[in-house]
Amino acid sequence: MTYCVGLLLDEGMVLLSDTRTNAGLDNIATYRKMFVFEEPGERVITILTAGSLSVTQTALARLREAIEQPEANEETSIMRAPTMLKVAEIIGNTLASVRQDIEHKMNAAKVSVSASMIVAGQRKGGTMRLFLVYPEGNFIEATEDTPFLQIGEHKYGKPILDRVVRVATTLEDAQKAVLLSMDSTLRSNLSVGMPLDLAVIARDECRVTMRRRIEKDDPQFAQMSQDWSEALCQGFSKITL
Amino acid sequence: MTYCVGLLLDEGMVLLSDTRTNAGLDNIATYRKMFVFEEPGERVITILTAGSLSVTQTALARLREAIEQPEANEETSIMRAPTMLKVAEIIGNTLASVRQDIEHKMNAAKVSVSASMIVAGQRKGGTMRLFLVYPEGNFIEATEDTPFLQIGEHKYGKPILDRVVRVATTLEDAQKAVLLSMDSTLRSNLSVGMPLDLAVIARDECRVTMRRRIEKDDPQFAQMSQDWSEALCQGFSKITL
Repeated sequence: MTYCVGLLLDEGMVLLSDTRTNAGLDNIATYRKMFVFEEPGERVITILTAGSLSVTQTALARLREAIEQPEANEETSIMRAPTMLKVAEIIGNTLASVRQDIEHKMNAAKVSVSASMIVAGQRKGGTMRLFLVYPEGNFIEATEDTPFLQIGEHKYGKPILDRVVRVATTLEDAQKAVLLSMDSTLRSNLSVGMPLDLAVIARDECRVTMRRRIEKDDPQFAQMSQDWSEALCQGFSKITL
Repeated sequence: MTYCVGLLLDEGMVLLSDTRTNAGLDNIATYRKMFVFEEPGERVITILTAGSLSVTQTALARLREAIEQPEANEETSIMRAPTMLKVAEIIGNTLASVRQDIEHKMNAAKVSVSASMIVAGQRKGGTMRLFLVYPEGNFIEATEDTPFLQIGEHKYGKPILDRVVRVATTLEDAQKAVLLSMDSTLRSNLSVGMPLDLAVIARDECRVTMRRRIEKDDPQFAQMSQDWSEALCQGFSKITL
């Protein structure tokens, strides 16, 4: 499985993904699930992926191909699309068509393949937007009321987001929130694993303003995880029944 | 959906269930999901249910019928079974057979029905045991390493249990832990709802030593929920990135 989360806040967007993929329990590997398409200052698009690796890799490859084609245009390339809505449409259509192609091949084996994506981005002069693209290619968008979107193994890490993330949350607090949300998921579910990819896109900068890979032995993340455990246990001990 | 959780600790067992059932989103009702079979001092069995209401109600009805039959014996009645293992077997077989009967009726509609149960109990002179019975009738048991079992919408409430519940946890802390686990689930998932049923079975007492229904407007639960939110937010604000 996977856990990816994106926040759309007043100050910008915060994105986090894990890197574990597994085919069964005995075939575990590390694959990047965060992909950045960027023309700094002009346009930034970040895609987080969950689901069948054959679907997400092929979809990403087709999106890249479409960007690089000489005849790339507003309808085919996410780097030329006039709006983020159009970007989400292109990505949704690509995801759905790859899924259909692969599912067609899998029919004989009666195996179903599926994938979903979080798409975050802004183009110069446009609005910063965050979408969740479903396997069928349709999508929903984060709003003021629901400023975060999750894909993959999302339930373990939802309670902390429900409690602390608001649209006015600062980018620093937001980074803490997604990392703690991931920490809870990592503890409870083996199919989500380190390292992690964290990215911040400050509003109107139209570029990834901070990007960090957090390795398994990252001392800062370990400390944070331990501090959070202690804070929870202390908080717990103070609650009276 | 449903959320039920059972803990097996040094001091005894703590059980908690919600009461919400829904057929679709517009047909929501309150049904008890905790059932106690008790001969105080001699034998106590508590069953928590999740899944299709038609399956769990019929299974419970058959278990009750089997107890009340004049020819009830060690093989058929959970109140006469010589061990808790046998109790789990009887319950598992009953659940599986009801499920098959109902699924047979549903075949035309291509609807699948399913249900699972947590079974907690002790008979005088026997060991206190906690089982999770799967829809197919097989079951697993809580152990020292994994002292809690959950059914239904279990993911939201797992992180807090993973962090604070150990086999040496006191019954009081254990009640707090399951209530906070439920609180996180209630916040994150609409299909789990108040009121709640809480029960404690102290070790070797062979009876339910504490039982409490927590209504929607319970001031104590509301206070606890609020205190926990504040503790989490305070803890969160102290974490440094």
